Amino acid sequence: MEEIVEKKYFVFAHPPDRLQLELGGQIGPVTIAYETYGKLNKKKNNAILILHALSGDAHAAGFHKGENKPGWWNDMIGPNKAFDTTRYFVICSNVLGGCKGSTGPSSINPETKKAYGSSFPLITIRDMVNCQKHLIDYLEIEKLLCVAGGSMGGMQVLAWMTDFPEKIKSAIPISTALHHSAQQIAFNEVGREAIMADPNWRNGNYYGYSIPSSGLAIARMIGHITYMSDISMTRKFGRMKYKNGSSKFHADFEVEKYLHYRGNSFVKRFDANSYLYITKAMDMFDALETQEKVNSLKKFKGDVLVIAFKSDWLYPPYQSKEIVKVCKQAGINVSYCEIESSYGHDAFLIEVEGQTLLIKNFLNRIYSGTEK
Amino acid sequence: MEEIVEKKYFVFAHPPDRLQLELGGQIGPVTIAYETYGKLNKKKNNAILILHALSGDAHAAGFHKGENKPGWWNDMIGPNKAFDTTRYFVICSNVLGGCKGSTGPSSINPETKKAYGSSFPLITIRDMVNCQKHLIDYLEIEKLLCVAGGSMGGMQVLAWMTDFPEKIKSAIPISTALHHSAQQIAFNEVGREAIMADPNWRNGNYYGYSIPSSGLAIARMIGHITYMSDISMTRKFGRMKYKNGSSKFHADFEVEKYLHYRGNSFVKRFDANSYLYITKAMDMFDALETQEKVNSLKKFKGDVLVIAFKSDWLYPPYQSKEIVKVCKQAGINVSYCEIESSYGHDAFLIEVEGQTLLIKNFLNRIYSGTEK
Repeated sequence: MEEIVEKKYFVFAHPPDRLQLELGGQIGPVTIAYETYGKLNKKKNNAILILHALSGDAHAAGFHKGENKPGWWNDMIGPNKAFDTTRYFVICSNVLGGCKGSTGPSSINPETKKAYGSSFPLITIRDMVNCQKHLIDYLEIEKLLCVAGGSMGGMQVLAWMTDFPEKIKSAIPISTALHHSAQQIAFNEVGREAIMADPNWRNGNYYGYSIPSSGLAIARMIGHITYMSDISMTRKFGRMKYKNGSSKFHADFEVEKYLHYRGNSFVKRFDANSYLYITKAMDMFDALETQEKVNSLKKFKGDVLVIAFKSDWLYPPYQSKEIVKVCKQAGINVSYCEIESSYGHDAFLIEVEGQTLLIKNFLNRIYSGTEK
Repeated sequence: MEEIVEKKYFVFAHPPDRLQLELGGQIGPVTIAYETYGKLNKKKNNAILILHALSGDAHAAGFHKGENKPGWWNDMIGPNKAFDTTRYFVICSNVLGGCKGSTGPSSINPETKKAYGSSFPLITIRDMVNCQKHLIDYLEIEKLLCVAGGSMGGMQVLAWMTDFPEKIKSAIPISTALHHSAQQIAFNEVGREAIMADPNWRNGNYYGYSIPSSGLAIARMIGHITYMSDISMTRKFGRMKYKNGSSKFHADFEVEKYLHYRGNSFVKRFDANSYLYITKAMDMFDALETQEKVNSLKKFKGDVLVIAFKSDWLYPPYQSKEIVKVCKQAGINVSYCEIESSYGHDAFLIEVEGQTLLIKNFLNRIYSGTEK
């Protein structure tokens, strides 16, 4: 999409009607930053909600004024793209707990006039989805044509399916899991530990002081290794040497330089506390943890397209197959596609061609069966 | 082995005849801590050198007086075990750069009477092997029956094959690689970064002060994830909950508690600078980097047994197959065995049965052909 887009803000849950959180906390008012692309039709039945991953935000497509970097899924959202904005009204919002316009630990608590910091309550994937439901209500959309997203975005798709099964016509969970495995939790925990071990973290109350940049950079470095695959790293870096001469131990290899670059640039755009809260929400998520959720899923009468990528070892295809299995068990019409790719978990952001045809045809079928 | 064993020390390279290091540095005197099990026969042709991994040491088998934890490969070394001490004389030494008795960054520099710290020169896998060669000379062993080791120990095996091909009759590289891939370098670099980001690291000169324990613990936590497999972690921990209540973000899951436990116990037994120097040596190692080494390998006339484990994703079987390939190209008699195991990289320490028969028969064949 070449268009200039704008971030919008939806504010709700004004005290005393605060938002009730799944784990017992309360918060309000809540701001949700969002963007929309394309036009909502008269019947309001062409709306698609896109859900972002851990470090994503509401800016999924198009360009912000004066910027030359498009939204994070610009290759997938736009005229004639997978999510075709000439047909569909596409919405993307920043998650609760985030740091890109939605209420999160770095937001100012109106009661104290200071950043929430560690007083921010623990949030869950279902809380994020609950906020999106409020946004959809506010936009007066009765039923979404589709919810779609990769990685943590896919977890939100699953939460939509179990928590608001009657509010969606279809769902596309990509490169995701019903719940995190021990290995996925472990990688997140090491990242959290790196942040919390940084003396600048100050128990989460670092706003106005130096930020825990080295801890957050380390967390992101770990993340990036898990987002790529062994083979994609070999192809991109191999054992290419790089010598910066700044220290005995630093960056002899290009891959090290790359990780440092990615770590350091992440620090400039992401909040360390958001990283803690959001990764914890991911680890705690379990789509079908209770019988209530299992029963709830059976109320979903729409179609599901599950997409996984062969070289994704962070969210391996077997986890997507588990999603397919529980959908089948719930009597849901589900199809599964495993795309050949060497890009690892990053594939859902990179493999545009492979996903486009699948998603385009899937949406076309769903939308064609919709009363216009 | 139920026997009580003792650590011994070999000191050499007394100034001015310091040890020349591969990357240009010099060091001396050098102490190498070592242990031996079994008896050297009269012909001195039954000696096997065992080479340890990153966090290993000279204490490979038996018990130290008053301790109830045996050496790290006790299941493999002892009477009638894979490395049968009723037949063979088994030697294991702590690597140069280590912190378990051999000279390393935490050793006292006799010139300054202070710990070397960051003044310790960069070392390589070949320097480690060169020290072992000095030890073997000191023990008056003309030719080793075998050199064997897993992970970094396997890299040392490869360095013996290229650097002292006429000094060994056979070699067993296990769960190792000709050189680190970008992914292996990346994991090590994040660990190093965690150590160096710890303010207690003080550019490596922390001896006498608080040690960089949180950084080293994080490095070890990352390591442990890579030593296990997705499936072994799922089997061991799954999503079992654990609540310590100490913090919002800490240890909701057993796997997190386990990683913290392993990280914290590592800090008590390992030196952070040794971690930096040794991981850097691993990353820089490239068995056949030069034509000289390729030619040198052709001088090796012995037998090689390459062992890999199916679920090892840190040193995947394809890397072992590359070792097989270069051996074949050098005209070496090599056999390859990939053992079914779900334990990931840790398998070389755990899968005793699978390795025992292979190694026992291999050694028996080599030793049988040796003039007694």
